[in-house]
Amino acid sequence: MSQRIKIKALLESEQTDIQVLVKGWVRTFRNNQFIALNDGSTNSNLQVVVDFENTDPALLKRITTGAAISASGTLVASLGKGQKVELKAKVIEVLGDCDPETYPIQPKKHSLEFLRENAHLRFRTNTFGAIFRVRNSLAFAIHQFFQERGFVYLHTPIITASDAEGAGETFHVTNFDLANPPKDDKGEIDFKEDFFGRPTNLTVSGQLEGELGAMALSDIYTFGPTFRAENSNTTRHLAEFWMIEPEMAFYDLNDNMDLAEALLKYVIKYALDKNAEDIEFLTQRLLEEEKQKPQNERSEMSLTEKLQFCLDNDFERLTYTEAIDILKESTPNKKKKFQYLVEGWGTDLQSEHERYLVEKHFKKPVILTDYPKQIKAFYMRQNETDANGNETVRAMDILFPGIGEIVGGSQREERLDKLEQRMDEMGIPKEELWWYLDTRRFGACPHAGFGLGFERLVLFVTGMGNIRDVIPFPRFPKNAEF
Amino acid sequence: MSQRIKIKALLESEQTDIQVLVKGWVRTFRNNQFIALNDGSTNSNLQVVVDFENTDPALLKRITTGAAISASGTLVASLGKGQKVELKAKVIEVLGDCDPETYPIQPKKHSLEFLRENAHLRFRTNTFGAIFRVRNSLAFAIHQFFQERGFVYLHTPIITASDAEGAGETFHVTNFDLANPPKDDKGEIDFKEDFFGRPTNLTVSGQLEGELGAMALSDIYTFGPTFRAENSNTTRHLAEFWMIEPEMAFYDLNDNMDLAEALLKYVIKYALDKNAEDIEFLTQRLLEEEKQKPQNERSEMSLTEKLQFCLDNDFERLTYTEAIDILKESTPNKKKKFQYLVEGWGTDLQSEHERYLVEKHFKKPVILTDYPKQIKAFYMRQNETDANGNETVRAMDILFPGIGEIVGGSQREERLDKLEQRMDEMGIPKEELWWYLDTRRFGACPHAGFGLGFERLVLFVTGMGNIRDVIPFPRFPKNAEF
Repeated sequence: MSQRIKIKALLESEQTDIQVLVKGWVRTFRNNQFIALNDGSTNSNLQVVVDFENTDPALLKRITTGAAISASGTLVASLGKGQKVELKAKVIEVLGDCDPETYPIQPKKHSLEFLRENAHLRFRTNTFGAIFRVRNSLAFAIHQFFQERGFVYLHTPIITASDAEGAGETFHVTNFDLANPPKDDKGEIDFKEDFFGRPTNLTVSGQLEGELGAMALSDIYTFGPTFRAENSNTTRHLAEFWMIEPEMAFYDLNDNMDLAEALLKYVIKYALDKNAEDIEFLTQRLLEEEKQKPQNERSEMSLTEKLQFCLDNDFERLTYTEAIDILKESTPNKKKKFQYLVEGWGTDLQSEHERYLVEKHFKKPVILTDYPKQIKAFYMRQNETDANGNETVRAMDILFPGIGEIVGGSQREERLDKLEQRMDEMGIPKEELWWYLDTRRFGACPHAGFGLGFERLVLFVTGMGNIRDVIPFPRFPKNAEF
Repeated sequence: MSQRIKIKALLESEQTDIQVLVKGWVRTFRNNQFIALNDGSTNSNLQVVVDFENTDPALLKRITTGAAISASGTLVASLGKGQKVELKAKVIEVLGDCDPETYPIQPKKHSLEFLRENAHLRFRTNTFGAIFRVRNSLAFAIHQFFQERGFVYLHTPIITASDAEGAGETFHVTNFDLANPPKDDKGEIDFKEDFFGRPTNLTVSGQLEGELGAMALSDIYTFGPTFRAENSNTTRHLAEFWMIEPEMAFYDLNDNMDLAEALLKYVIKYALDKNAEDIEFLTQRLLEEEKQKPQNERSEMSLTEKLQFCLDNDFERLTYTEAIDILKESTPNKKKKFQYLVEGWGTDLQSEHERYLVEKHFKKPVILTDYPKQIKAFYMRQNETDANGNETVRAMDILFPGIGEIVGGSQREERLDKLEQRMDEMGIPKEELWWYLDTRRFGACPHAGFGLGFERLVLFVTGMGNIRDVIPFPRFPKNAEF
């Protein structure tokens, strides 16, 4: 019995009347008798029953919320409500005290904002335990999905010298003394003296390098951090976030959409299976929260129902042009309820339009394709100009209820002449991307890929409202604590 | 037959006389008849046999090394040597041409240095195909190992404000115009104006944040990029590299060593099973390379044998103090063959000493424990002062043949007073790490963890000699290409 057993394994086992040793943190201690013990392996606490009449009162006093303890004794069938088994403790040891006067995490409901300021301790709450276990499952499911399909996980660089996509919203990386960087003859900063011998920044996407891998290994994916120095203080943006970016040789846009839809369904199903208890807890949490809202603002479906609904239904696929037609004719557009009225073809869709399509019109996830060329990136494959003279590219965005864009992708432009022409039009420096263009010179082929924002996925599956609550230590304007 | 099949699946299938469609890149084209086709799914090429008498000569001319093609026809048993099956092509289509005059990757042996300069194309060689498939397997095996044991994968932050461990060797991250950063009243840089409102840098380790997770979830691991702005141009260092850092509550140093040894064996075994063909190729590659060396410099074991040897033997565990005794009495020390002679207790071991222990004395992986306090980090648990008055910490380093340190870890100092005292002695700012110290204030417990350098692991398993060859796009002084 010297081997500690985790509470999840213990609660799942059907055995009773066995000797066990558990270790964890006290959530509550009731009547000098009942410890609710949690070790993070599951959302459920183990009830540890203390023989208080035969326990040193000095020890009893040290059993406080947050204290780390070990407890050994007999696992018995529980007579009380709410649990099948409980631990009749024989020996209890306090491994680490926790002063109830100063411990920030009290056994009561704390605001999410308060917990964000105490992100180092919020793992110890039910909500954040559940969130980070679900996040873990989603991450692993993503790897498993791609491995089952023979994809190669590729670590694309975090520090890059090209800013082709960043549009100025990148973080600089430098080894210079910022107060006194070396200057050249002209008085300009001499980047030759910097660590990498040139200006460098944090990547905004691993896609371009990912394509290099796909042009030899067929199917690759990245899963790494990406960065945006965008000064937006919203519930949907982070300065540092994780992205999954698969790139597939010999895929067209339809293959790409099929893969993305299969991926999303796979990982949601994985979490539903693996984290049933956590998702049930988060479902109840959301129901409680929505009770505060007026009836007409509450969700029609619970979190679990919403996740199940995603698995059971094909995502709706339509072109941008078809979407514009629907939006133009929609009631909120005609009644001028949209903040941005949809008047014609060519402008980007706003969040309100995406939400209308997903939540009101189709009532399910939507994949929009073939966006106007003008609002999309240089590397997307150009379609033939249509009968109305509209120029579009083989892009696709997947829109999710409550989240908006969760995936953005495209078939890539594999034709060197078209690609170079588009780069010239958009002022993208070709000489900086010589290596990217080389893949169009040597054995190019049709290929496609997409980016999945990991935190947006976690947001969707946990039903949380603020992206800062689904990453352990969020980075946003004026915040890099922990 | 419209569905493309990957070459790996096709070669593994036992079927013949079926219609198949394959897509990939031409490695060689022999006698206007035999295409060696590779699609990255395996090291092996598929032989595609062209009916050259009935094929347009203009098409034949376009089948060149590096070209992307699709080929469909009948899979038949091969009469030739070297393959069981081959594809009798009915239709061949060139998807992307490749000019043999300008294509850098010729069907011959290129130097590793040349391929490093063409890192965007080196995926297309046998060596790098094998390396990156092995790297992929090792990465997935790491996740699977931890998932099977109930660990939570935690994304610790990349951008951090604390430089507790960096010792000045960190990269700055800033949103400032480097030529003209805002200054405060005193003429100093006004970091309040920077994106995060304070100086920030790239993380050197996720350990401290990882510990925060472990103090609630019990067992966590990180797997992410870390950075060192160290100006070392060696075959063992990168400025950007990937680390795996598990942290376990309620673990002591022995548990920690057991876990690390189990992890290394698990992932090596996974790669040997999953990538037998790639590792066999790399083994032959290394044998060829060693033929250039004088007999006495060649390895006693082949790559495969070395990997198998790691699985079959317990790692040797001994204390730093015991190691010093062995080294002092060793022949190279007595004959003054070491560059740095081992004279007494207290100094750090050099690479030559580690190699002697691993490669000559024990001839197997070695775990050294209980290093002098003076040469280790502030967070390591302090031992009782020994009979000789020596002060040590509960550290462990795992040393591998040819690689040196592959894992570094320790039991962590959970006692607040000891930890604070050590931080004061070493000049580590306590106020910056208030959140780290909080875990010692509230429910502390014995815990331990380690860091595994991912590229060093890949180096070991692939038998490559330069760490720049086992990461897709290496970052080192004066280099951030691609």
